[in-house]
Amino acid sequence: MAGAEGRRARPTGGEHEASDHAPRDTVPLELVDRWWRAANYLSVGQIYLMRNPLLDEPLARDDIKPRLLGHWGTSPGLNLVYAHLNRAIVERGTPTLYVCGPGHGGPAMVANTWLDGTYSELFPQVTTDREGMARLFRQFSFPGGIPSHAAPETPGSINEGGELGYALMHAYGAALDNPGLVVACVIGDGEAETGPLAASWRGHAFLDPETDGAVLPILHLNGYKIANPTLLDRIPESELVDFFRGHGYEPLLVTGGFDGEDPMAVHARMADAIDVAYDRIAAIRADAAAGAFAARAARWPAIVLRTPKGWTGPRVVDGVQVEGTFHAHQVPLAGVRENPAHLAMLDDWLRSYRAEELFDDDGRPVAELDALRPSGALRMSASPHANGGIVRPIELPPTRPHALDVPSDGRGLSGEATRVFGAWLADVVRENPDTFRLFGPDEVLSNRLGAVFEVTDRVWAEALHPLDEHLARRGRVIEALSEHLMQGLLEGYLLTGRHGLITSYEAFIHIVDSMFNQHAKWLESAREVPWRADVASLSYLLSSHVWRQDHNGFSHQDPGFLNVVVNKQAEIVRVYLPPDANTLLATMRHVFGTRNRVNVVVAGKQPQQQWLSPDEADAHVGAGLGVWAWAGNEPGFDAGDPGASLPDVVIACAGDVPTVEAIAAAQLLRLQLPALRVRLVNVVDLMRLQDRSRHPHGLTDEEFDAVFTRTQPVIFAFHGYPSLIHQLAYRRTNHANLHVRGFAERGTTTTPFDMLHLNDLDRYRLALDVVHRVPGLASRPRVEELVEEWQAARTAARAYAYEHGEDPEWITGWRFEVPRGE
Amino acid sequence: MAGAEGRRARPTGGEHEASDHAPRDTVPLELVDRWWRAANYLSVGQIYLMRNPLLDEPLARDDIKPRLLGHWGTSPGLNLVYAHLNRAIVERGTPTLYVCGPGHGGPAMVANTWLDGTYSELFPQVTTDREGMARLFRQFSFPGGIPSHAAPETPGSINEGGELGYALMHAYGAALDNPGLVVACVIGDGEAETGPLAASWRGHAFLDPETDGAVLPILHLNGYKIANPTLLDRIPESELVDFFRGHGYEPLLVTGGFDGEDPMAVHARMADAIDVAYDRIAAIRADAAAGAFAARAARWPAIVLRTPKGWTGPRVVDGVQVEGTFHAHQVPLAGVRENPAHLAMLDDWLRSYRAEELFDDDGRPVAELDALRPSGALRMSASPHANGGIVRPIELPPTRPHALDVPSDGRGLSGEATRVFGAWLADVVRENPDTFRLFGPDEVLSNRLGAVFEVTDRVWAEALHPLDEHLARRGRVIEALSEHLMQGLLEGYLLTGRHGLITSYEAFIHIVDSMFNQHAKWLESAREVPWRADVASLSYLLSSHVWRQDHNGFSHQDPGFLNVVVNKQAEIVRVYLPPDANTLLATMRHVFGTRNRVNVVVAGKQPQQQWLSPDEADAHVGAGLGVWAWAGNEPGFDAGDPGASLPDVVIACAGDVPTVEAIAAAQLLRLQLPALRVRLVNVVDLMRLQDRSRHPHGLTDEEFDAVFTRTQPVIFAFHGYPSLIHQLAYRRTNHANLHVRGFAERGTTTTPFDMLHLNDLDRYRLALDVVHRVPGLASRPRVEELVEEWQAARTAARAYAYEHGEDPEWITGWRFEVPRGE
Repeated sequence: MAGAEGRRARPTGGEHEASDHAPRDTVPLELVDRWWRAANYLSVGQIYLMRNPLLDEPLARDDIKPRLLGHWGTSPGLNLVYAHLNRAIVERGTPTLYVCGPGHGGPAMVANTWLDGTYSELFPQVTTDREGMARLFRQFSFPGGIPSHAAPETPGSINEGGELGYALMHAYGAALDNPGLVVACVIGDGEAETGPLAASWRGHAFLDPETDGAVLPILHLNGYKIANPTLLDRIPESELVDFFRGHGYEPLLVTGGFDGEDPMAVHARMADAIDVAYDRIAAIRADAAAGAFAARAARWPAIVLRTPKGWTGPRVVDGVQVEGTFHAHQVPLAGVRENPAHLAMLDDWLRSYRAEELFDDDGRPVAELDALRPSGALRMSASPHANGGIVRPIELPPTRPHALDVPSDGRGLSGEATRVFGAWLADVVRENPDTFRLFGPDEVLSNRLGAVFEVTDRVWAEALHPLDEHLARRGRVIEALSEHLMQGLLEGYLLTGRHGLITSYEAFIHIVDSMFNQHAKWLESAREVPWRADVASLSYLLSSHVWRQDHNGFSHQDPGFLNVVVNKQAEIVRVYLPPDANTLLATMRHVFGTRNRVNVVVAGKQPQQQWLSPDEADAHVGAGLGVWAWAGNEPGFDAGDPGASLPDVVIACAGDVPTVEAIAAAQLLRLQLPALRVRLVNVVDLMRLQDRSRHPHGLTDEEFDAVFTRTQPVIFAFHGYPSLIHQLAYRRTNHANLHVRGFAERGTTTTPFDMLHLNDLDRYRLALDVVHRVPGLASRPRVEELVEEWQAARTAARAYAYEHGEDPEWITGWRFEVPRGE
Repeated sequence: MAGAEGRRARPTGGEHEASDHAPRDTVPLELVDRWWRAANYLSVGQIYLMRNPLLDEPLARDDIKPRLLGHWGTSPGLNLVYAHLNRAIVERGTPTLYVCGPGHGGPAMVANTWLDGTYSELFPQVTTDREGMARLFRQFSFPGGIPSHAAPETPGSINEGGELGYALMHAYGAALDNPGLVVACVIGDGEAETGPLAASWRGHAFLDPETDGAVLPILHLNGYKIANPTLLDRIPESELVDFFRGHGYEPLLVTGGFDGEDPMAVHARMADAIDVAYDRIAAIRADAAAGAFAARAARWPAIVLRTPKGWTGPRVVDGVQVEGTFHAHQVPLAGVRENPAHLAMLDDWLRSYRAEELFDDDGRPVAELDALRPSGALRMSASPHANGGIVRPIELPPTRPHALDVPSDGRGLSGEATRVFGAWLADVVRENPDTFRLFGPDEVLSNRLGAVFEVTDRVWAEALHPLDEHLARRGRVIEALSEHLMQGLLEGYLLTGRHGLITSYEAFIHIVDSMFNQHAKWLESAREVPWRADVASLSYLLSSHVWRQDHNGFSHQDPGFLNVVVNKQAEIVRVYLPPDANTLLATMRHVFGTRNRVNVVVAGKQPQQQWLSPDEADAHVGAGLGVWAWAGNEPGFDAGDPGASLPDVVIACAGDVPTVEAIAAAQLLRLQLPALRVRLVNVVDLMRLQDRSRHPHGLTDEEFDAVFTRTQPVIFAFHGYPSLIHQLAYRRTNHANLHVRGFAERGTTTTPFDMLHLNDLDRYRLALDVVHRVPGLASRPRVEELVEEWQAARTAARAYAYEHGEDPEWITGWRFEVPRGE
């Protein structure tokens, strides 16, 4: 056996302690090599072949797919890692998850899951035999088939191979609360250049080696991206070692396969590195169990695997070096159907794997490979962690103990919505002690969710200081100043069957727009995969929103995440704008119970007037929108049949601050123009505005018309960009009468009322809008006076703020003065 | 002088060569300390004081702002760096730019620019005297005043202190093509946790020490974010050194100010570190000039400054440790107006700076400080680099030599739009040899812009291999697999007066949504700052778009960036969808000449039918949209008066692939229903659809109605999400008749026609839409047959693709068969 002597050779570079691991060499490396060759063969087959999978006949033009799509370059490396991890699992029984960063290695991941047998279990038509192999090949990157990158369709995958950068954060998220699990994460050297990946290296700062799993990063340096070398491949090796140590890892360097080196020598080095890494992880765990982790000293192991891009593929094609260069990135032989020389090279290439040693006469993997196949759920492709499968349903404690007791006349109570929610969130954390986590970019306290620190802490594996507050070796809260990392950890946590919440300042959640997109697309695709289990929804709580950036300026004022969200499939996305604390409670209780969705909830943290009792809030969230008759002025209104009466005008609102302004405007009108019939509508579930044919939460046209009328002016005070309301409601009967106020992209560091003034969303402006939109009203003499008065009030309020640095008392101190029960 | 002995002490930690720098100690450190104290005084004053700036009277409640907003914690560190950089500039004359990462250090940056005298030059009402100081204090974070973070209003700033993460990439972008410049970049230890910042450390891989400036990163470890410690502050110091070395830097560690240490000792260490860093930079430059850089060996210097958060502020407030903890992050004394004890502490705090040594009786900085103030444009606050000021207008070579010669009958010419543009882009690079750069996330070749490599290379300071292609020590193209880094470098390059382009796959540009937002907000705010000079527009070329992801799958299919873009102020944003190569050329020539905008151009790279001659393309881009009479069927149409005739239906299109389908649909209709009057409208400038009152490019209602009619059905084939067209056009007369097809969020790895089919955007669907929308048409017998035929054609095309793996010849090979000149 070629590699036997080299077997226990030390991986080069990077110090590490002598391993105390007693070799359990039950799997000969020759078998690892065989698995690797089989996976390579299957990878190439998927890229090229339509039929004749085992080359029973001489390879012919018609065996070749007409469009050659796929990525060969990364595949042999991914296959090598898979084979070696299988060996570690078989020898040790350590449950291991494979997170594949080089997403375009779809052919590799699919090949291994087919060798595992999992593929045929999940896709019975793709049998583990010659015919199944032919199907496996043909379906890859083929219309009606499977995508070219790791995707929800790929068994064992929790990482979409589309946009790169999220593999390592997904791995760390998967490891949380999974003691005993090893998450092996292959990171391409291209992906390693992305910001999100770079922010992930320190994921171990939030890991408890005793109660969490471990992550084993495997940086695959194959040297090239699409058409460029990679940075980490071209720096001095000493700098690379520093790089890993500087991130808290001890790297194990495995280099090989260059200049025709015998793969068996590489197998020996790789096997040793894997052994050392698993041993090191076991040692760190044992130390932690013995209490030694209290003073963080351990460096986690990481493997650097440096092999040629497209290793074992064609070396030179048409005089151009392909193996070991970026030319191996996609399809090394592009002209196979047209060029007989290329066809012959492909034939040689495929035969170089010696399929006769890999597959039996029926096209099944040879029996010897059974020894390298972990059993049942230990197969990485069959890991229950990789297929959602909610570990335990979330326990939702009652919200009532935390609800605000809103006085029946609505007077005199001020509440901070997120603070009220935070108290209930603490209960959620307590009731779900190892399946719920809270993630935030250092804004949990700022967003007034501090009550959670009464029941838990922030987890922190780095140094602790005596003055630290709510920071400990264990905790259910993770905070780092990276929205990317928070989102990625939560995604990994959810996709492995658990529950959680991410909170952020509203403006900065745009940082993860593309991560939201990728996750939503994952959920959209997963709906079509019958064996994919439900996962808990990804829920955002966005606070410190556009209207209350008293501390901050224009750069913090952006409500546009909602626009990104509504573009995704209606089955997936929900947007909620609870107007007060009790509706926020009702909303969050609802969204935590949902599955396979993305829920976006926007709620303020500042003290403000409260509107709904707990019962009313529950009913309002259930309905999604409703007429608040007590805030309007519509004699004869019948809640059971809103279409039966016809107001002169509808004032609608969505969002906590716009709701205050809308109610205030309605009050101004009621006091000054008591004959004007005003209906106030509050929208908490934004998708209600869309047509039911477009969104499952949408109102029918009849329902919509009953609330918003078919004919009367509607003044809509909206939290976000006004065009979003038009985008949702443009099909509605009364759309031509819909006038929306919202964020008009004007802002600075200023007072709350001045922000409303700047964007024409203040109460006076809304009341003026009503006057101008109700036919004939503006020209009445009494009204003309009012118009002047309200315009003067706006100007005066602003002048007061500019003079005194605050909103005038009669603005900030404004309360809902008209008793609700009238 | 307290620090004199310690002056030449070696900074602790981190090896570095002995400095060969001959001390030019013309500025005593006592003066540096005085500047620092003055800046600290002015920082505190801005946060707290409305009046009584020099404490001439005992501090009273009414001197205090009613709302205390601002961030003290980072300010003393920023001030320290500023004072020490001033010393280096005065002693060496090295032009230096200060990029302030901790954006909330607004008070610090403003304080120093006022001490520089620049502030009063740019804002004459804020004089350099007592009255001006009072204005300076009052305006900070005050309604009608200035924001609390570094912003366009801040002299010397090119980095908005809103969303964190972009300081270091802005610094590297500023350094490019600025030989001799040092860009000192202060990075907060919070910001250092973000992904984008983490991706920036390797910015020096794209720097040529001879022809570019240098970046001096200064990591400010004050230990805390909003409410958490920072990761880099809590790792072992040896790991921190490894971290820097692993990124190619030699760190100079400066620690001090803890436990009441005399600041003079810290000044000595900091002065030494700055001297060593400047010397090292000079040495690297000299080596490079001597040719030594060819083998990259040098480590760039970096400074790690570890001082207490809120240093020199209140130590303990109400029994809680404040200095040196996160409690110093914002306003350390929050109850000053209500709490006389806090008021007294503030008084002590302010007086601790000994204002009488800092300002003269008139409130001017004392004359001694003149010695630390660089002269004129050497002041960092007055650096011409920091105020746009386009260095040279872009040279735009003629496009005609590269334009495609489209046959007059439109037949038989296939072109790849981006490849054609690439050839012209090479000319642009050649004509602007040191003021234009191209940035891309390893997609320049993939997006078929490879012609630029005939005139330049990719710049690469890491190892070069013999097989490398278009990679060199100098070049005008920068590529790394980080959209963040590419965007950030370009922003830094543009804001310092140069020109450039970023190219990306369309779907993945969402990665920089929030960076786009921040840059657009910068431009929006800068319009209000009279002294800000024009900057070149930020232009995106998005290719590999949603409709041609043949290689890739659903994760690569997302046209939603346009939705993000249109939310920004109309004065800033432009969106172009050129339908062929010549319109792309005309579009790019236009956008390169614009200023202070963000231009988004979406264009495909795949071979497709060409439509417009160069002259027609220029005219079409100038008009923004137009009727293509030759593609429709509207006898009597008058191009000079489109409203004079009335078609039965309008087929509109925007985007290259939708244009092909729209023209094909019109052809189907013309051949099959020759009596049907069809008008085809192509939209290249999307903002034309918006109302002129909303967007400067918008059509008036009259113009719009003349083209789209007031009454007839409009079938709109759109590149992106259909709702975007409704969002732009909902105010138009004929909106109720507007039916938009576009990306319906359905996709996978499949053929181009199947993608259209999946999203109901194919030619047959469009023709069917016409049939269903033109009143009475669908029920005619002949049409009923057509409907069946077209539906069958769709199904057959799909079945063919699913069977054969490609689109049928009669789809992909489709050509514009009807001569244009008819």
